[in-house]
Amino acid sequence: MLQAEKNFGILTDDIIQQIEGIVGKSNYSTTLAERELHSKDQSMYPPSPPDIVVWVETTKHVSNLLQLANTHRIPVTPWGVGTSLEGNPMPIYGGILISFQKMAQIIETYTDDFQVTVQPGIGYKDLNGTLARQGLFFPPDPGANATIGGMIANNAAGIRTVKYGATRDNVLSLQVVLADGRILRVGSRSVKQSSGYDLLHLITGSEGTLGIITEATLKLAPIAEHKIAVQAVFDSVAQAVETVVAVRGSGLDPVALEFIDTYMARMMNNNPNVDLAESPQLFMEFHATHEDALNQTIEFITEICSDIGAHKIHATADTKERANLWYARHHALESFQRTHPGKRAYLNDVAVPISAYPDLINFIHTLRETAPLPAYMLGHAGDGNIHVIFPFGDEEEYKIASELNAQVVEQAIAMGGTATGEHGVGIGKSRFMAQEHGDALDVMWSIKQTLDPNGILNPGKIFRD
Amino acid sequence: MLQAEKNFGILTDDIIQQIEGIVGKSNYSTTLAERELHSKDQSMYPPSPPDIVVWVETTKHVSNLLQLANTHRIPVTPWGVGTSLEGNPMPIYGGILISFQKMAQIIETYTDDFQVTVQPGIGYKDLNGTLARQGLFFPPDPGANATIGGMIANNAAGIRTVKYGATRDNVLSLQVVLADGRILRVGSRSVKQSSGYDLLHLITGSEGTLGIITEATLKLAPIAEHKIAVQAVFDSVAQAVETVVAVRGSGLDPVALEFIDTYMARMMNNNPNVDLAESPQLFMEFHATHEDALNQTIEFITEICSDIGAHKIHATADTKERANLWYARHHALESFQRTHPGKRAYLNDVAVPISAYPDLINFIHTLRETAPLPAYMLGHAGDGNIHVIFPFGDEEEYKIASELNAQVVEQAIAMGGTATGEHGVGIGKSRFMAQEHGDALDVMWSIKQTLDPNGILNPGKIFRD
Repeated sequence: MLQAEKNFGILTDDIIQQIEGIVGKSNYSTTLAERELHSKDQSMYPPSPPDIVVWVETTKHVSNLLQLANTHRIPVTPWGVGTSLEGNPMPIYGGILISFQKMAQIIETYTDDFQVTVQPGIGYKDLNGTLARQGLFFPPDPGANATIGGMIANNAAGIRTVKYGATRDNVLSLQVVLADGRILRVGSRSVKQSSGYDLLHLITGSEGTLGIITEATLKLAPIAEHKIAVQAVFDSVAQAVETVVAVRGSGLDPVALEFIDTYMARMMNNNPNVDLAESPQLFMEFHATHEDALNQTIEFITEICSDIGAHKIHATADTKERANLWYARHHALESFQRTHPGKRAYLNDVAVPISAYPDLINFIHTLRETAPLPAYMLGHAGDGNIHVIFPFGDEEEYKIASELNAQVVEQAIAMGGTATGEHGVGIGKSRFMAQEHGDALDVMWSIKQTLDPNGILNPGKIFRD
Repeated sequence: MLQAEKNFGILTDDIIQQIEGIVGKSNYSTTLAERELHSKDQSMYPPSPPDIVVWVETTKHVSNLLQLANTHRIPVTPWGVGTSLEGNPMPIYGGILISFQKMAQIIETYTDDFQVTVQPGIGYKDLNGTLARQGLFFPPDPGANATIGGMIANNAAGIRTVKYGATRDNVLSLQVVLADGRILRVGSRSVKQSSGYDLLHLITGSEGTLGIITEATLKLAPIAEHKIAVQAVFDSVAQAVETVVAVRGSGLDPVALEFIDTYMARMMNNNPNVDLAESPQLFMEFHATHEDALNQTIEFITEICSDIGAHKIHATADTKERANLWYARHHALESFQRTHPGKRAYLNDVAVPISAYPDLINFIHTLRETAPLPAYMLGHAGDGNIHVIFPFGDEEEYKIASELNAQVVEQAIAMGGTATGEHGVGIGKSRFMAQEHGDALDVMWSIKQTLDPNGILNPGKIFRD
């Protein structure tokens, strides 16, 4: 019915035959099993299977598929590995799902340039595993083993963004296939470019709605030799968050600056390998090329945290201790499942200017006091980004979580912030776009219509139906 | 005649009356003197006066002017202070020139966020003069006293880009007026945002062809306490350029990494205050929060330069000596005028991946051997950016310079680089756009047509007529 409203075409046997002609017999499936495997990401939305799953092997496959789909107005949704958190690659209008599982190669590493060119289906952890041999890595780290294509589509970020920026800041050049099958190159391997419109950043974060990425050249960074992790525990949320602002203003250059509230710490302790103080706290990481610089950093950060009133500060350069500290953070989702068996997580992703962070956290803290659901906070505090997690078990609780989420989002937007710091708009946040962007949303829509007049590319995302 | 071809309207007395109604009697002029003052920037193109100069004081002025101009299809060109180098704000189809001279205020400084919101007409040096009191600065430094609006429109860069990025990397949010008068806000004061299409970066670098910037929120950086300047002199261009690649790969984080060839050094010596070795050389600058770190840097950089064969290395933390070193670089244009009195500079601005930089420099070096004009090289080597300067005195020499420039540009593009690293496309580089961007240029054009269907915004720039 929704498809009919959008005037989408139907995937006929004839079209399936043409798809077979493009990608070959072994590269598509209409079985229920495969369709279900590609029906949902890690978000909380109900599954929605595509009509057909197609595994592409070349850019030409993608181009030919899009020409075909465009002619017949069949929806096309690109798919990396489904680790996204906002339903971004869910084919909610069915149609063709393009999997990049078979386009997962490193094409070329440019060691002198600190760059690598890859196919979109490669997982960033797999990429970094290979790059480690050359002492390099691709900094954005959204967790799980997200594919590079998905990370670019969603402008994914993660823990290290406070130092290295989001995916947007680490992409140099893309090959993109438009809805009509045209193949473009945008951006440049030259780090400096002032040559016409910045299509690179227009495509990055457009969630597959403007074009499909088939190749990407990424910026790399050298792996630091000296690293310390710091845990600082406070009596109050206010102290912890005050420290975030102080660290950001100190001239120190944290690689990670994460906030965890008491409830979150308590939840994390439901993992036998974790033993955190049940108080508001910060996890930090600092890197340096010289050991001396690191010692100075430890001194400086200890002073900042003590002055504001941390009652425990633990700084360690030991690899194992560092891993232990981050273990709790990396296994947050697992702890959630132990704490709320059978429930799912409604995940919030607002971000605000750093000066507004204390007020935002305080707003959520107050909201929680009267909220009918538990609420846990953990966030990339160094970027002004917070995730509030509401557990829900049924439709009633989902509605409550959704309403609480809306209150937090509206507060963040009112503070000059955004509905989504790193998960993208996907399905659930399109309802906040008019509020956040005003008339700029109309301009986004006009660009969408210009590049994809039939609306076949990942329909139902970013813009409200 | 050109206006007629583009189907532009004529600025009638009635429209001038309406302009007076919008901005007031004292905020416009049709005198020849004012029109000539706004007829050219610092590029080598022949002057082209607007029909009217209008000084705006508010965003509403801009919005009302654009509605009027759009209705009557009158060209509109925004103007900062005219320091650009590619004719970017030259009103080559006449019409209305909007000067931002009277919109030059700092609106708000967000010290905790390291951000400032300004009007577009403020010069970045004036801005930095005020910000210095708070220990902050806006890093991009294109030279002269370019306005923030112009810097954003051209995605200007400069000497410090190797560390801090170009203007594009230091803009967070813009207020923009579209051709039809709509006022948009794009981007966010939240440093993290993954919320819809990146219109912020689409507008940045669009040279006033998609919309007119009326307000900007910028990222600031703390002024470093400890600074050193380093000069390293080599026997050969190859050694100097090899050092650039080595420094970029070393993990050191130069604030500036400039290359000057023998001819350029000799030219700079035509200034009584300059006394450079007449050999290929690098100027570098490094900053640090701790003095110790700076001493380690001096040791490390001295080792790198010596190993490659520098015959002179001078590192200094002394403020006066640092200023002396940079004096030569900052007065390059003055030295040009002393060396070639009465001639003008044809300025090239290509950039390539850093690994291709040695080959590019070698290409130019070889080209010079048979070139019928002198050629001087100075460049932001750390970014892979080089400026070749050809002096010309008449039309014949202009043609030769233009042809030499084309050879360098085509070589840079073939190496995966760009026709313009920091000056923008403006008038002269539109002829290389198809070669550099292929089908992506058509996409840029379709976006232009969508946002400015009458083509009134800064016509004749970026796209070839």
